[in-house]
Amino acid sequence: MASRLDAFRAYREQMNEKILASDHLGIKRFFNLDTMAYKDGAHPGKTKELLGLVASAVLRCNDCIDYHLIQCVDAGFSDDELYDALNVGLVVGGSIVIPHLRHAYETIEVLRQEQAKG
Amino acid sequence: MASRLDAFRAYREQMNEKILASDHLGIKRFFNLDTMAYKDGAHPGKTKELLGLVASAVLRCNDCIDYHLIQCVDAGFSDDELYDALNVGLVVGGSIVIPHLRHAYETIEVLRQEQAKG
Amino acid sequence: MASRLDAFRAYREQMNEKILASDHLGIKRFFNLDTMAYKDGAHPGKTKELLGLVASAVLRCNDCIDYHLIQCVDAGFSDDELYDALNVGLVVGGSIVIPHLRHAYETIEVLRQEQAKG
Amino acid sequence: MASRLDAFRAYREQMNEKILASDHLGIKRFFNLDTMAYKDGAHPGKTKELLGLVASAVLRCNDCIDYHLIQCVDAGFSDDELYDALNVGLVVGGSIVIPHLRHAYETIEVLRQEQAKG
Amino acid sequence: MASRLDAFRAYREQMNEKILASDHLGIKRFFNLDTMAYKDGAHPGKTKELLGLVASAVLRCNDCIDYHLIQCVDAGFSDDELYDALNVGLVVGGSIVIPHLRHAYETIEVLRQEQAKG
Amino acid sequence: MASRLDAFRAYREQMNEKILASDHLGIKRFFNLDTMAYKDGAHPGKTKELLGLVASAVLRCNDCIDYHLIQCVDAGFSDDELYDALNVGLVVGGSIVIPHLRHAYETIEVLRQEQAKG
Repeated sequence: MASRLDAFRAYREQMNEKILASDHLGIKRFFNLDTMAYKDGAHPGKTKELLGLVASAVLRCNDCIDYHLIQCVDAGFSDDELYDALNVGLVVGGSIVIPHLRHAYETIEVLRQEQAKG
Repeated sequence: MASRLDAFRAYREQMNEKILASDHLGIKRFFNLDTMAYKDGAHPGKTKELLGLVASAVLRCNDCIDYHLIQCVDAGFSDDELYDALNVGLVVGGSIVIPHLRHAYETIEVLRQEQAKG
Repeated sequence: MASRLDAFRAYREQMNEKILASDHLGIKRFFNLDTMAYKDGAHPGKTKELLGLVASAVLRCNDCIDYHLIQCVDAGFSDDELYDALNVGLVVGGSIVIPHLRHAYETIEVLRQEQAKG
Repeated sequence: MASRLDAFRAYREQMNEKILASDHLGIKRFFNLDTMAYKDGAHPGKTKELLGLVASAVLRCNDCIDYHLIQCVDAGFSDDELYDALNVGLVVGGSIVIPHLRHAYETIEVLRQEQAKG
Repeated sequence: MASRLDAFRAYREQMNEKILASDHLGIKRFFNLDTMAYKDGAHPGKTKELLGLVASAVLRCNDCIDYHLIQCVDAGFSDDELYDALNVGLVVGGSIVIPHLRHAYETIEVLRQEQAKG
Repeated sequence: MASRLDAFRAYREQMNEKILASDHLGIKRFFNLDTMAYKDGAHPGKTKELLGLVASAVLRCNDCIDYHLIQCVDAGFSDDELYDALNVGLVVGGSIVIPHLRHAYETIEVLRQEQAKG
C-alpha cells in the first residue's frame, strides 16, 4: 500500500522535472504561482493546505488529494481534523465525492504508517 | 448594490421554506447535514466556512460564494484573509474562476458597507 | 414569475432558430440527436425526461433544468415525483446543487400555476 | 475481467467500513442519506438507480457508474434499457463521456457473465 | 442588446481594477499569466484565443465566452470559423453546452452590429 | 511506457466496436458526429484537433487527451506547439489540470519514441 504513495511521489517529481525542462515560460510561472499560493500569507500555509485539500476533493482529483494530504499530515493535522475537512468536501460535492473519500482515507492510513516507521 | 445581497437573502429564505415545506424526508435531512457541516467540530466553524468558500469558488457557484462570504465576514475574517483564501481557489480552479472572483470582491464590498452602516 | 419561463421559452426558440439558420451541419445534427434522445425507445420518453432532469441538476444548468421540468410536467409527473428525482440529484451532486434546487422548485410552482390557468 | 468488479466490490466494502469506523457523525449521516435516496419513494428504487447511473455518467465517475450498474442489473434492467439510459448521458454530457461509456459497456458485459454463471 | 456586452466590459474593467488594487501578489501574478497565455508564442495569439473560446464553452462560463469572442472577432475570425470552433465545444461538452451556444450566437450578433457601426 | 498507449489503442478499438455493435441508433450517430467534428471545415482538421486537446485538458480526461495527442502528433504539431496549447488549458483550468499535464507530457514522449522507431 505504501508503494502507491511512493510511486506517486516518484512519478510526480520526475514529470515535474520534465515539464519544467520543456522551458515554457507560462508553465514555469504557473508552477511557481502554485507553490507560492500555499506559503504563509494572510493565512498560515497550514490552513491553505487544508483549503487545497477540500478544493481537490470537490473537484475529484485523487493525485491532488494525495499531494495535499501529504502536506497536511506534514503540517500536523490530526486524523479527525482531516476527516472533518473532508466532510465539508463531501457535503458540498455530494456522493460523487465518495470514491475520492475512500482514496483519501487509504492515503491517510499509509501516511500514518510511514510516520510510525519514522 | 446592497440590494443584490438583500434580494439573495430574501429569495434564499423564501425558497428554503418552500423546499422544506414540500416535506421530502431526504431533502430535509440533506439541509440539516449541510448546516451541521459548518458547526464547530474538529475544526472551528469559522475555519469550515473558509473551506466552504474555496469549495464554492472552484465549483464556480455565485450563490454559494455569497452565502459563505456572508458567514465568513460574520465570523470576523479580514479582507486580506478572504482574498488569500480566494487566491487558493483561483490557482486551483484557473482563470475560469475569475468571473466569480469579481463577484466575490463585489460581495465583500457590499458586506463591508453593511458593517459600516451597522 | 410566469414571465421568467415565458422569457426563457421565447429566447430559446428565437436563438435555436438562429443557430439552425447558421447552417453548420454538425450543430444541426447535434440538435436532432438531442431531440431524438428523449423519444420513446427502450425507455418511454417520459422516463428519459426524468433522466435529463437529474443530469441537468447535477451539472447545475438552470436553463436545462427548466427545459426538462417543462417536459416532465407535460408528461404528467407529480410534484412528489419531481422532488424525489431532484433529491437523487441533490445527494449525488451535493449542496452546490441547492441553488438549482431553489430554481427548480420555483419553476415547478410556475408550471403548476400555468396548468391551473389552463 | 470479472476480477475488476470483484476488486471494486471488495475495496468499496473495506473502505466504507473504515470510513464509518472513523466515527464522523456528518459522514455517517451522509452515507445513510445516500442509501436512503435509492429506496422506494415517489419513484420505485429501480427508477432511481437509473437516475443515479445517468448522473454518474455525466459526472464521469467510473466507480459510481459501476456501483449503479450493479444495482441496475440486479433490479432487472435489460442491456437495451441500460444503453438507452447511457445514451441520454452521452448526449447531455458529450464526447468526454465516451471513455466512461466504454467502461460501462465492459462492466455490463462482466455483470451478464456473472449472471450466466449464476 | 449591445448594452449587455457594454455592461460586461464596464463591469469587468471596474472589478479587475479593484482586484488588482487589493494588492494580493498571487492574484496579480495570475492575472499577468492569464494575459500572457494569449500572446504570440509557439502559436499565434489568434489561435490561442480560439482555444480559450472552446475551453470556455466546455467549462460553460458565459463571461469567459464573451471575453474570448470579443478577442476572436477582433482577431478577424469569420462567423463560420467561430461556429465551427463552437461545434467542437458542443460535441465535446454535450447538450449542456447548448444554453451557452445560444449565448455565444447572440454575442457574435452584437459584435457584428458593433463592427457595422464602426 | 509505449505499452500504455498501445493498451489504450487496443482497448479503445475493441470497446468502440462493441458499442457500435450494440446497435443503439443515437449512440451510433453520436460517434459519427464526433468523428465529423474534427474533419476539415471552416477550420482545417488539424486546428480542431488542437481545440479537442485543450477541451480535453480543461475537462481533465486522460483518455481524451491521449486520443487528441495522437491525432495532433500525426497532424504534425511540434512539441512546443503542444506545450503552448496545453498552457492555455493550464491557465484556464488551474492547478487541478497539472496531473493531466504530467500525463500529456508522458504521452508526447511516447509518441515521439514511436516516431523515432518509424
